[in-house]
Amino acid sequence: MSDSSVPTTGVEIRLASRPQGWPTHDNFEVAEAPVPQPESGQLLVRNKVMSVDPYMRGRMSAAKSYVAPFEVGKPLDGGAVGEVVVSASEKFEAGQLVLHSLGWREYALVDESQATTVSDEAPPNAYLSVLGMPGLTAYVGLMDKAEFQEGDTVFVSGAAGAVGSLVGQLAKLNGAKRVIGSAGSAEKVRHLTEDLGFDAAFNYKDGPVAEQLREAAPDGIDVYFDNVGGDHLEAAIGAMNDFGRIAACGAISQYNVTEAQPGPRNMFQFVTKRLSMRGFIVNDNGHRKRDFFEHVAPLVREGKLHYEETTVDGLRNAPEAFLGVLRGDNTGKMIVNVR
Amino acid sequence: MSDSSVPTTGVEIRLASRPQGWPTHDNFEVAEAPVPQPESGQLLVRNKVMSVDPYMRGRMSAAKSYVAPFEVGKPLDGGAVGEVVVSASEKFEAGQLVLHSLGWREYALVDESQATTVSDEAPPNAYLSVLGMPGLTAYVGLMDKAEFQEGDTVFVSGAAGAVGSLVGQLAKLNGAKRVIGSAGSAEKVRHLTEDLGFDAAFNYKDGPVAEQLREAAPDGIDVYFDNVGGDHLEAAIGAMNDFGRIAACGAISQYNVTEAQPGPRNMFQFVTKRLSMRGFIVNDNGHRKRDFFEHVAPLVREGKLHYEETTVDGLRNAPEAFLGVLRGDNTGKMIVNVR
Repeated sequence: MSDSSVPTTGVEIRLASRPQGWPTHDNFEVAEAPVPQPESGQLLVRNKVMSVDPYMRGRMSAAKSYVAPFEVGKPLDGGAVGEVVVSASEKFEAGQLVLHSLGWREYALVDESQATTVSDEAPPNAYLSVLGMPGLTAYVGLMDKAEFQEGDTVFVSGAAGAVGSLVGQLAKLNGAKRVIGSAGSAEKVRHLTEDLGFDAAFNYKDGPVAEQLREAAPDGIDVYFDNVGGDHLEAAIGAMNDFGRIAACGAISQYNVTEAQPGPRNMFQFVTKRLSMRGFIVNDNGHRKRDFFEHVAPLVREGKLHYEETTVDGLRNAPEAFLGVLRGDNTGKMIVNVR
Repeated sequence: MSDSSVPTTGVEIRLASRPQGWPTHDNFEVAEAPVPQPESGQLLVRNKVMSVDPYMRGRMSAAKSYVAPFEVGKPLDGGAVGEVVVSASEKFEAGQLVLHSLGWREYALVDESQATTVSDEAPPNAYLSVLGMPGLTAYVGLMDKAEFQEGDTVFVSGAAGAVGSLVGQLAKLNGAKRVIGSAGSAEKVRHLTEDLGFDAAFNYKDGPVAEQLREAAPDGIDVYFDNVGGDHLEAAIGAMNDFGRIAACGAISQYNVTEAQPGPRNMFQFVTKRLSMRGFIVNDNGHRKRDFFEHVAPLVREGKLHYEETTVDGLRNAPEAFLGVLRGDNTGKMIVNVR
């Protein structure tokens, strides 16, 4: 079961220190670590692609949250797809591609219960984006948390990102009246309306979000999918029609602030307009994976759902890729090709 | 069908001008108006008791909202119970007591479709409080919007008010693990714990709400029933356990501010703790009246649900009673005895 092509050491990226405010390269350490030997029920996986995501910023802090913080001096982790190179499990064999959660390293020792076979119907990357965590996040947030209904006008922030771009397209494909996206560059805005079928989009850096949203949605919005928080959330509450619904998915505008920012000044509109807001985390929604897959996989196969990727080559560049996600350098999912 | 005891004129309270910030007596006018004659399908009702409620502050402003604004120069309106003195309807007869929405006047001309007979099972006042709008508000907010479950720890603000005092008691009667209330005086705090069975209560004027709440609910809260907004809302979000639920009913702390106040600085906790918040208005929830009545009427009959009232005598004192509600002078429901 051993594979003579496995070296004795591999690269891994460790958390060197916890960031205050915006993370920098100094918070990461590129290290060589011994390649472990799988014991019974374990797999040695050589990672091919890995994910960097905004939520990882939260795990760099020590604060207790819904996922355990990364530990200083230890490798980071996160979604990855790799090839089984040594299997000590009866369920997997060498050569198979598996999805697992031990990215940020060349070689991962994965428990068989933590690995999922990926089919070759789609490229490995897709299992980190449209068919993976970002896809399920978009689907659950839009359908379950925001209770999307045909005819809704939908606003999504971070609309050119991995999740946002899928939210807008899923809304259109399911009969939204109008879909509006916000993003952070003219090129992204063009991409949303010209490539992804958004009805309107704006660059939030061009002026107050509330004004730009009012212009893009003169009849108000029924659903807001929040990836951003801050002034986007206040603007969305202000633009909401009666019985509007907010899915709170993320707040990238707040991840690197060192002091708590004032919240929306218009919270009372929750009462007058009977609004609802639900925060959610994709990990709680594993029971929706099957419905999600049945809904989304055909759309991908038929080319109806576009998923963009921004790829960075080399594990050593993963910190830079992650910093880029926080800055908004990516269009669609940011993927690191490990080798 | 005429009643010779009906005078030709009656007192009514009109909106003299729209308040900026806190309303004053100058915003009201006490006037004499001709007593109208009912036409077919109408009733002339002599009001006995009427309601003054915080939500009326919103109607004094011109801003479009979920209920039409009061008109300057016209009488205000709101819940009232009175005796039919002249009936031009086949459905009602003189002498019956009816609940309707034309308070703030001695004599009301009520369409038969807008009147509901009240039984003598409970005093007329009860149909303006525990068996009326505040009762339904408490029931719908706690059970439907906050999805109360046995074993929840519940926090309610404005807890000594008409709605809040019922929320806390309904939670206890339905198996809450712990019920905490906030109010604005030591006497109200005593009333909550000693008379109404709250497990803990605090005076929000005694110190930061967040600190007092943490002390009263060391294991966090699962439900927050918000009557107050402002720093109460931020404190409640901060104290929420995972999957906590907020029913947004009112924001009395914000009704008289002339400039929008910063909102909660911890909105991102909606994501990390998977919180939900639903704003609601009792008028949308008429379909729950039957369930409400079946649940609450026996509790009232058996003396298990206490409802306090603060009464003010005389229609001319209704503006003062209303200003008192905004200041928090009342314990329980503020009722005006019209005569």
